[in-house]
Amino acid sequence: MDKRAKKRLAILDILHRSTDSLSSTRITELLNAQGVDISERTVRLYLQELDQEGFTENRGRRGRVITDKGKNEAAASRVLERIGLLSGKIDAMAYRMDFDPALRRGSVVVNVSVVPLPVITAKRLELIKKVFSKGYSMGTLLTLFKPGDPGAGITIPEGHIGIGTVCSITLNGVLLRRGIPTFSRFGGLLELHNGKPTRFVDIIHYDGTSIDPLVVFIRSGMADYVGAVTDGNGLIGASFREFPADSIEAVHSISEQLETIGLGSLLCFGNPGQSLFGVPVGPQRAGAIIIGGLNPMSIFEETGARIQSSALSSLIDFNRLFHYTEFEQRLAAF
Amino acid sequence: MDKRAKKRLAILDILHRSTDSLSSTRITELLNAQGVDISERTVRLYLQELDQEGFTENRGRRGRVITDKGKNEAAASRVLERIGLLSGKIDAMAYRMDFDPALRRGSVVVNVSVVPLPVITAKRLELIKKVFSKGYSMGTLLTLFKPGDPGAGITIPEGHIGIGTVCSITLNGVLLRRGIPTFSRFGGLLELHNGKPTRFVDIIHYDGTSIDPLVVFIRSGMADYVGAVTDGNGLIGASFREFPADSIEAVHSISEQLETIGLGSLLCFGNPGQSLFGVPVGPQRAGAIIIGGLNPMSIFEETGARIQSSALSSLIDFNRLFHYTEFEQRLAAF
Repeated sequence: MDKRAKKRLAILDILHRSTDSLSSTRITELLNAQGVDISERTVRLYLQELDQEGFTENRGRRGRVITDKGKNEAAASRVLERIGLLSGKIDAMAYRMDFDPALRRGSVVVNVSVVPLPVITAKRLELIKKVFSKGYSMGTLLTLFKPGDPGAGITIPEGHIGIGTVCSITLNGVLLRRGIPTFSRFGGLLELHNGKPTRFVDIIHYDGTSIDPLVVFIRSGMADYVGAVTDGNGLIGASFREFPADSIEAVHSISEQLETIGLGSLLCFGNPGQSLFGVPVGPQRAGAIIIGGLNPMSIFEETGARIQSSALSSLIDFNRLFHYTEFEQRLAAF
Repeated sequence: MDKRAKKRLAILDILHRSTDSLSSTRITELLNAQGVDISERTVRLYLQELDQEGFTENRGRRGRVITDKGKNEAAASRVLERIGLLSGKIDAMAYRMDFDPALRRGSVVVNVSVVPLPVITAKRLELIKKVFSKGYSMGTLLTLFKPGDPGAGITIPEGHIGIGTVCSITLNGVLLRRGIPTFSRFGGLLELHNGKPTRFVDIIHYDGTSIDPLVVFIRSGMADYVGAVTDGNGLIGASFREFPADSIEAVHSISEQLETIGLGSLLCFGNPGQSLFGVPVGPQRAGAIIIGGLNPMSIFEETGARIQSSALSSLIDFNRLFHYTEFEQRLAAF
């Protein structure tokens, strides 16, 4: 929704919630109180438009009221908001998690993949562990969910297992609690040559999509981890983030701390204002490329097994995570 | 790229192309001549920043020159542009096609799906034809490409066939030639109940992605045309467009004309400023929902056959299109 549509909707919402008619002065006051930056003159212009379109009615001195048509419009406009773009979900989850790297305690954000038990073969497990050992995963930890486990945030049916991978948004959350804001710009498919990232071949911006870009790349079979772990030439999912330039040292030290814990995720880091793999950043910002959490799960799709993945699916306690080398052992215990 | 980064890059580009040092006045003139709306004061501020970051060097009276670091930055910044967001490709193809509905002559935009011959079964053909007959396709026409046909815009290997479906951008192109601009906002997955569209469940904005949203929905198996054509309950790919409010009558009449020709695509049309399935539009605009051209090809993915589709793949002559009822016959002749 553009700014104009948002402001018109904000005016309709104010009138919708009010039992009385409201003057343009009062509407402006209420909008400003909500943090909407708008002048009374602009409010009056929008109200005239809304009158003409039949969404509001001018009762003269007593002010404006919303019409039935306006009420429908206000309700319908909320539908788009319910769809929810990924950027909103990212911030919400970063805010809700509370993992503390110093105490190694608290909750982390996980993606959950629902995998039919028969497709978990020894060959696929081997490749998945290689994705972890080569560092193409967000850290070295994962978790499992049994059928019906409500903690998965997605239904795990009988005969299936939920595999939880640590979501790279966990870094946003840890930084947020240190007062560092993260701007998550886009998810992309990063080309590797001899194990080195070279360029982004496809990208989807987080504020333009309701589906996680990495889920999209993996499900549509566009990623190539089999190649990445076999000869270092492949396509892996990564995320482009930006931090305030002044915070880079703090981001560096926190990400090193996370790496020790098994939650490492930074693939590379730019200097302030410097472009990274051809992606320019603003002068007060530094860019970083972060490995996608769902990456190891791509092995299933690439080897012909369709799975269902949910990004940012749930918050789980850090203690539920185990090291990838224990994968078979934990699976056997299930 | 945000506006700020774009303007900084525009300044670097001007200096990059110049053999002499340039004053801020001259840079401002050159930028304004390129259509970049910027004041000399702003140019001076950006130049100070660029100096500090080592991208430019202040030679005093003689003006600014670009440094080697600045040259690298200018070159690297172009990489992101090369990725190309879909919104740019949409406008480029709409501009390049020249179909004239009155003369039924000229080129139209097609999507091309590369399909291995063995997966084209009678059952799948039946379902594909149902997608056309139920009106969940962009019109009623399609075309075929033989292996190696350069007109497909994508390689068709031996043992495969290229199926060309008319891209809904064709409507943009026809409208553009009548002077009507189309704003293509997003591609979405539209839920159908008893054959009626009810709401968008997922969306990807065209200006935030390098991959076509409908290709994404179809390849990831999120669409449900089998349901849509069987009992009217399913998920189909559709596109949200906006037109100037004043042009609706013209858009209506042109789209009726296109429908007669077999290029019909409008699913529904909103009144000026009115939201459509919960998607609000601006007061000077009218929204419309247009059926995705690739839709019939989803049948392959939904029934377990992986295919490769390229949206906005190519321009072909209108005469190459045939009616969907001739599909088997044309295939047999191949």
